[in-house]
Amino acid sequence: MNTVIEQILKHKSIRHYQNKPIAEDILNDILTAASRAATTGNMQLYSIIVNQDEKMKQKIAPLHFNQPAIIEAPLILTFCADFNRFIKWCNARDARHGYDNMQSFMWAVVDTCLAAQNACLAAEAHGLGTCYLGTTTYNAKELAEAYHLPKYVVPICCLTIGYPDENPEYTDRLPLEGIIHHEIYKDYSSEDIDNIYHERENSELTKRLLEENQLENLAKIFTERRYTKKDNEYFAERLLTFLKEQDFFK
Amino acid sequence: MNTVIEQILKHKSIRHYQNKPIAEDILNDILTAASRAATTGNMQLYSIIVNQDEKMKQKIAPLHFNQPAIIEAPLILTFCADFNRFIKWCNARDARHGYDNMQSFMWAVVDTCLAAQNACLAAEAHGLGTCYLGTTTYNAKELAEAYHLPKYVVPICCLTIGYPDENPEYTDRLPLEGIIHHEIYKDYSSEDIDNIYHERENSELTKRLLEENQLENLAKIFTERRYTKKDNEYFAERLLTFLKEQDFFK
Repeated sequence: MNTVIEQILKHKSIRHYQNKPIAEDILNDILTAASRAATTGNMQLYSIIVNQDEKMKQKIAPLHFNQPAIIEAPLILTFCADFNRFIKWCNARDARHGYDNMQSFMWAVVDTCLAAQNACLAAEAHGLGTCYLGTTTYNAKELAEAYHLPKYVVPICCLTIGYPDENPEYTDRLPLEGIIHHEIYKDYSSEDIDNIYHERENSELTKRLLEENQLENLAKIFTERRYTKKDNEYFAERLLTFLKEQDFFK
Repeated sequence: MNTVIEQILKHKSIRHYQNKPIAEDILNDILTAASRAATTGNMQLYSIIVNQDEKMKQKIAPLHFNQPAIIEAPLILTFCADFNRFIKWCNARDARHGYDNMQSFMWAVVDTCLAAQNACLAAEAHGLGTCYLGTTTYNAKELAEAYHLPKYVVPICCLTIGYPDENPEYTDRLPLEGIIHHEIYKDYSSEDIDNIYHERENSELTKRLLEENQLENLAKIFTERRYTKKDNEYFAERLLTFLKEQDFFK
């Protein structure tokens, strides 16, 4: 099989790392790979914050709820949607911009994530392990303060990187037919839902989780433990407020 | 150099394709690669719409302003942020969800883009050319109608795929130091902006564009031709309205 696809299929999140720094030329490869991702109109609407300094790591770790991955990783990349640089360029060239709105923000978010995934794969190509932190937008405002982000810059996703100190099992995925639609979207019947989630709901991992959490089904582990309505609504409101402050909300 | 990084660095957008279909097993590789990307809490908050049928292509091409890439591509993948499947699962399991908000939408958008970039690289690994269409959110509502998207599903990015019928030059990128920040964000002085954009502003391509557009600088090509304030504000308002309709806006 093709090497690139083989590597993509082998992806797993690594949350525990060896205490071993990452060489400068490897970091450079990762960042260069990020910069070669497709970008809307070649505007490159993102910035990447590189954290290797112990003090900065201690400052941002609580904003990611001190997950092991951020505590242990020698390298943390925070990918930010960034229209600041582009708008500063427009202003300096007397070009009247109109990028302080949701459409522009969405271009920047897509650009940011494509660059992040290139970085992830480049890191793995060097034998490094990575983990995305889904917590990046939870405390976006506080991260912005820690990083001194100006207006028009919003942290979107964060990648912890290091030499693996664990070798977990591959995570399962829904069957392909559960996420693919041919020509148009075929909405899910309750039978479809049962079929798509059947394997996951009956896995050993699920059985263990249900026992640990004392809950009757896997969906409730998501809604009552991991991503509760109360938490989501709290963080959503903070995110909306922050997007307005960053002037992306026309 | 490592094969994976080598391929990432070779990326270029391909907008003209041979009239040659894509084999089923290659399509399957591309979709499987997409499904292996990291995803928030393994929720897989996306769906992929596969278009190969000529009639559907003709229906959606105008929504992407009939760009050559969408007219010529034998395969079009539209990546949608999707909480519908997950919410239907929660409802079927009597689990009270709280995913109708901006925080949940952002997870889904990140998941969607990481999957898209895996698909892009898997396609390229098979010798295919790809082009992202930045127009996907412009007519998100009309795309949703064409695809019969239910509530909680929003088209985010679209990838046209086919065997290349052109071999364009590599697109330039800003110098790496223009997009990277060490430890904290270092905001750009006007001198920084001049330096970062110097090479691009003085390229042969820019000279040609300025002549064709009869404008005095490259920034104005963006603000007065490609992505104008008027267009952006129009599409941003439509996008916000659509996000509210899809119930992602608490």
